[in-house]
Amino acid sequence: MAAESGDKWILTVTAQTPTNIAVIKYWGKRHEELILPINDSISVTLDPDHLCTTTSVAVSPAFTHDRMWLNGKEVSLSGDRFQNCLRELRSRASDVEDEKKGIKISKKDWEKLRLHIVSFNNFPTAAGLASSAAGLACLVFSLANLMNVKEDHSKLSAIARQGSGSACRSLFGGFAKWIMGKEENGSDSIAVQLADEKHWDDLVIIIAVVSSRQKETSSTSGMRDTVETSMLLQHRAKEVVPKRVKQMEEAIEKRDFPSFARLACADSNQFHAVCLDTLPPIFYMNDTSHKIISCVEKWNRHEGTPQVLFSSFVFATVLFKSII
Amino acid sequence: MAAESGDKWILTVTAQTPTNIAVIKYWGKRHEELILPINDSISVTLDPDHLCTTTSVAVSPAFTHDRMWLNGKEVSLSGDRFQNCLRELRSRASDVEDEKKGIKISKKDWEKLRLHIVSFNNFPTAAGLASSAAGLACLVFSLANLMNVKEDHSKLSAIARQGSGSACRSLFGGFAKWIMGKEENGSDSIAVQLADEKHWDDLVIIIAVVSSRQKETSSTSGMRDTVETSMLLQHRAKEVVPKRVKQMEEAIEKRDFPSFARLACADSNQFHAVCLDTLPPIFYMNDTSHKIISCVEKWNRHEGTPQVLFSSFVFATVLFKSII
Repeated sequence: MAAESGDKWILTVTAQTPTNIAVIKYWGKRHEELILPINDSISVTLDPDHLCTTTSVAVSPAFTHDRMWLNGKEVSLSGDRFQNCLRELRSRASDVEDEKKGIKISKKDWEKLRLHIVSFNNFPTAAGLASSAAGLACLVFSLANLMNVKEDHSKLSAIARQGSGSACRSLFGGFAKWIMGKEENGSDSIAVQLADEKHWDDLVIIIAVVSSRQKETSSTSGMRDTVETSMLLQHRAKEVVPKRVKQMEEAIEKRDFPSFARLACADSNQFHAVCLDTLPPIFYMNDTSHKIISCVEKWNRHEGTPQVLFSSFVFATVLFKSII
Repeated sequence: MAAESGDKWILTVTAQTPTNIAVIKYWGKRHEELILPINDSISVTLDPDHLCTTTSVAVSPAFTHDRMWLNGKEVSLSGDRFQNCLRELRSRASDVEDEKKGIKISKKDWEKLRLHIVSFNNFPTAAGLASSAAGLACLVFSLANLMNVKEDHSKLSAIARQGSGSACRSLFGGFAKWIMGKEENGSDSIAVQLADEKHWDDLVIIIAVVSSRQKETSSTSGMRDTVETSMLLQHRAKEVVPKRVKQMEEAIEKRDFPSFARLACADSNQFHAVCLDTLPPIFYMNDTSHKIISCVEKWNRHEGTPQVLFSSFVFATVLFKSII
């Protein structure tokens, strides 16, 4: 071991990453292992003071295995997704020196050093609040800091993407776009920032959790079923989404709330539509979601112009309101 | 008035027509007034002993206006749909003679004679059980009998279609197909029988009404909204349904329950999917529908081959089981 201060040292980094809410949805992969999507998507990253994951990563020569604890319980890191992220990060790690602690880690040490990861979500896991997006983004971000990975956020986003697709968008504040990319190895399937968190800071987001139970169909298996059985999904991905992405980028740039509302609602509905067009059908809305959406529709119709918009995802309905 | 027995006579006909359940769904018109659909549809007509409409039609020189009572309450006949049916039938009416009663009505009298219509559904109206389908089919069928209209069921179906689209399919027992047609005047948009009621008589149909309230969105305005706003509907109508209709005809001909089940479930889901892809979204399923569908899916998966299928429509889920 090249670390110079004996076997007792430990080096840690802690980071916080908020979850993100897609306003143009990601649903369907063209490559399962690399997590390459069939269409671009756009999301709003929440304020890190609210829904977020806090992750501490630690490295020490005393550690014998990579280990991880999520919300206080140890979870396995043996899955391909974690392993892919760890492998990608280790291969990009650099020399690290902590003069105060007298720690020196050289680039090649990272292959042998083991990591401990402790992660907490301040919101329910697997209830549709993109816990894995925040989680994997935070994991990659904190490890990249610990390991002195000298790559920009977009490059890191391609690593986070291999842990959980939508995680790539959580590396940016404000508005982020996940570009689907064309390369077979996924190198161009990355997230970019469309606008930072100050660009549209009078946009208020309210999250209504409509069911506290874990979803029955995981996103991974659900979108695989949709890709295999829906007769509408490819039409959505190829014909509908590309136009919507352009319109949504414009709406965000101009802070055009009515267009933003119309596009986000339409895309939320279409995401649930292709879920329903799956065999077996996937239900990610319930009677409470329906009631919230009906209220929003009535309110907007009454006012004549959108006051509030909904974007429903798995058992949570998100309301956006512009407070201009 | 040419009737020869004075003004006191009354001539009546009573008929019963069952409702029908689409297994390849009709959703979306290409012509609003003529009620011309954007795709073919296929349905199963229920046993008339169960869900049906009973309609008595009467003609008398004493009647001063066309009038109609539905489930004991007078309803207006002034709507275009009723008027279109009455006009079409009157123009096709023939001489009628009832020797016992000493009544003679000549072809030209029908334009002046007024009608009374009394109709009862033995099931909830507007709860998604195709009450208007059974009702309009029965209205047209009973009036055609009263007026001695000498046209076959397919020709009559084109008249019933102008009252309520899916009514055209209720003029046949067993399995019926509504051919969308190509003519601008709708003359070839008719129903035909695919197989009679004896063809597959071990098919059991169970209807679960999952909500007793009237639907919030009528089919007429709902499908208009879908045509105007859904980005998926045209793809469904042009690319998906034509193939499914062929496969469904084959499945019915061969009494192939697994194929019948797969196609009907997929099409039911897709109907609800395009409803959801509408602005504002249309919800015709609720948590109870979801639970029934999940049960069916689990049962079928457990058995390895479809035992039962669902076809959900507005607030009713229909289960089909083959008892072979």
